[in-house]
Amino acid sequence: MNIPYTNLPRLVIIGGGFAGVALARKMVKENVQLVLLDRHNYHTFQPLLYQVSTSSLEPDSIAYPLRKIIKRGKNTYFRMTEVTSIDSNEKKVHTAIGSITYDYLVIATGARTNFFGNETIEKNSMRMKNLPQALNLRSLLLENLEQAVITTDPEKRKELLRFVLAGAGPTGVELAGGIAELQLNVLPRDYPDMDFSEMEIHLIEGADRVLPPMSTNASEKASKFLEKMGVHIHTNTQVTNYESNLVSTNTDLSLKTATFIWSAGVTGAPVKGLNADTIIPRANRYKVNEYNQIEGYNDVYAIGDIALMQTDEYPKGHPMVAQPAIQQGNHLVKNLKRHLKGKPMVPFKYFDKGSMATIGRNKAVVDLGKFRFGGFFAWFVWMFIHLWFLVGFRNRFVTFFNWTYNYINYDKAARLIVRPFKNKEENAIERV
Amino acid sequence: MNIPYTNLPRLVIIGGGFAGVALARKMVKENVQLVLLDRHNYHTFQPLLYQVSTSSLEPDSIAYPLRKIIKRGKNTYFRMTEVTSIDSNEKKVHTAIGSITYDYLVIATGARTNFFGNETIEKNSMRMKNLPQALNLRSLLLENLEQAVITTDPEKRKELLRFVLAGAGPTGVELAGGIAELQLNVLPRDYPDMDFSEMEIHLIEGADRVLPPMSTNASEKASKFLEKMGVHIHTNTQVTNYESNLVSTNTDLSLKTATFIWSAGVTGAPVKGLNADTIIPRANRYKVNEYNQIEGYNDVYAIGDIALMQTDEYPKGHPMVAQPAIQQGNHLVKNLKRHLKGKPMVPFKYFDKGSMATIGRNKAVVDLGKFRFGGFFAWFVWMFIHLWFLVGFRNRFVTFFNWTYNYINYDKAARLIVRPFKNKEENAIERV
Repeated sequence: MNIPYTNLPRLVIIGGGFAGVALARKMVKENVQLVLLDRHNYHTFQPLLYQVSTSSLEPDSIAYPLRKIIKRGKNTYFRMTEVTSIDSNEKKVHTAIGSITYDYLVIATGARTNFFGNETIEKNSMRMKNLPQALNLRSLLLENLEQAVITTDPEKRKELLRFVLAGAGPTGVELAGGIAELQLNVLPRDYPDMDFSEMEIHLIEGADRVLPPMSTNASEKASKFLEKMGVHIHTNTQVTNYESNLVSTNTDLSLKTATFIWSAGVTGAPVKGLNADTIIPRANRYKVNEYNQIEGYNDVYAIGDIALMQTDEYPKGHPMVAQPAIQQGNHLVKNLKRHLKGKPMVPFKYFDKGSMATIGRNKAVVDLGKFRFGGFFAWFVWMFIHLWFLVGFRNRFVTFFNWTYNYINYDKAARLIVRPFKNKEENAIERV
Repeated sequence: MNIPYTNLPRLVIIGGGFAGVALARKMVKENVQLVLLDRHNYHTFQPLLYQVSTSSLEPDSIAYPLRKIIKRGKNTYFRMTEVTSIDSNEKKVHTAIGSITYDYLVIATGARTNFFGNETIEKNSMRMKNLPQALNLRSLLLENLEQAVITTDPEKRKELLRFVLAGAGPTGVELAGGIAELQLNVLPRDYPDMDFSEMEIHLIEGADRVLPPMSTNASEKASKFLEKMGVHIHTNTQVTNYESNLVSTNTDLSLKTATFIWSAGVTGAPVKGLNADTIIPRANRYKVNEYNQIEGYNDVYAIGDIALMQTDEYPKGHPMVAQPAIQQGNHLVKNLKRHLKGKPMVPFKYFDKGSMATIGRNKAVVDLGKFRFGGFFAWFVWMFIHLWFLVGFRNRFVTFFNWTYNYINYDKAARLIVRPFKNKEENAIERV
């Protein structure tokens, strides 16, 4: 891997998501040789992926080169590669571009889409966990509209103009809202010869309400907003299959659609090689102690979505979202620094900053401890916080400009089919 | 194609490049039914494609949705499709999505990369005539650097860090300058563990100077600028082959490289079906009269790169660049309006507004009639004019912001590998 040996202890971090980046950004200043590995050469701000899919933003607004994030350090190295396995006896990580030894290993590989073993759905559905997938989805949405406008077969047009999403967590809700925005404000001017009352958006959720991880207050408000925008919500319904453009469920509901998006769950993306019992079976996450050490190892850590730290408050681990990942990354900085100085580590404590979801123009819901609110102010808070957390002034500015422009002009400028969606198989390549 | 018949005469335009868009934008207000056909759903500002390839801009800065351009008209239709042939007896255009009759047909299909019959080069080289190709090139450049940093084989590293361009017209010069900018200002900070003195850029040109269509003054200045930035220029040299990473030429020069970019020429992209003798053989362009009517037809026009209008001043036709295309599009608006009113058409006259090329930071050359200048002021003029000609306030603003940001920070923010370049074949799909 062409990385020199030095006297410094070597810290290898697998994954440049929220957790890995939070850790890497601060550790570059410490007395370690830092090696960051990722499949992509950029960090992705996943909460805004849906805006790439719905033509609001281009990738450069929500992605940031990983090399730029870590370049301030002299003893830091980035390698774009896929990790294949870990050999903890030899303290080695094996990758597609060779092996590397570690003194400290941090696994921050995040989560992948969870199809709960349904291979047909995995093969046929769209998903949105990374930038190439988000761009594929954008192209498919726009290509379907181009198809719909030329077809004279009313059944086929229905299929092309019907968008079905499985899973009404934040991703499903925000994406459904984004597509509804296109339907209401942007597309009718683009396609004056098409009747957009024919376009349908369906959001299917297994639980009894949308946004199940949020408060019932947020769920109710989000439902109301979505329904006002024309989104059909089907709760207490589980999608069982999607084949030949037909979505089947465990109820009477079945829908013909050319676009089926699976946002019904995520599961950890562990690496091969550690003891099998370190992975909690169904969650696919590493069991870690309060210092984020993986059970049975004292030099191997896991942070973010891939880590499952059982606490009294979170017996099933922290939610698989950005905040715990960032906080665990930052906390591990503190602990590694203490460890390097021979001091004992301190336990991680999650500070719940609340959760939020945007539904569309002027519409969002926020749970902030006891404060639960929705509507214009929530939407404003949502925007401010998302801008704040974007990496770098440039990304914040470009995003802010695009949002302002889109807001004033009821427009979404990036409706470009630059990634023609010929091959669904290609999309099935899941990337960490 | 699902377009209703009306009492209005139907004008079909094939191609949404500079010529087609100039025509369509104004004809939407006239008493015609306008049908615009293009393979892409966007107009591309081709002069800035090289900035997409070199990570300065994202597609949404230089592309504009065609539906947005024509949506002001009530009797206007856009269809994204590929035209397969023309039947002038039945006055029909055949496409991948069905046939359409026309009263007036305007062919504005532009140009494609010219490989002069060399199939090996066509198969193995990169090109940059549209957005997907420009994004492919960006990913390849960045992927090669990621490869170079891990290799311990000095020969292989040389190949990965050597970039060879054939053809020193404006595209070749601007792209070579853009890559040199990356080498000088951006990449060394990204790859502190790589020695960028090993990186080489070679620009190969068959003529005896770079920028052969411009003045000798511009050529000399451009050469000086390029050499100052470390670009190796080889004039009077023709590339004869590129195979197994080896560029061969008709001189002693041969170069091993993983990145070979072909910018050595363009040729017209005519449509099947019209009389064979309407196409000038080597140029592949339609022979048109002074009203842009294709020889032998009075209801079929050609404008832009695909049209070859022989005049005393331009016996081989106008240069295949944006200005003649825009002017012919605008002029045809005038003539079609006259024709619809029963007035005689007026001949086209090209007004040469000059030409220019940018080489890098603070460096450009401009030929403006008798005024020939280079350097900082030329660079300023180049920027201003390119911003001016971008479609829409938003694209201008985003481009302007990115340029300012990149200039101040010696940065190029879009260095994201979002289109991993796995398959060179895919890139070979030439699109009009």
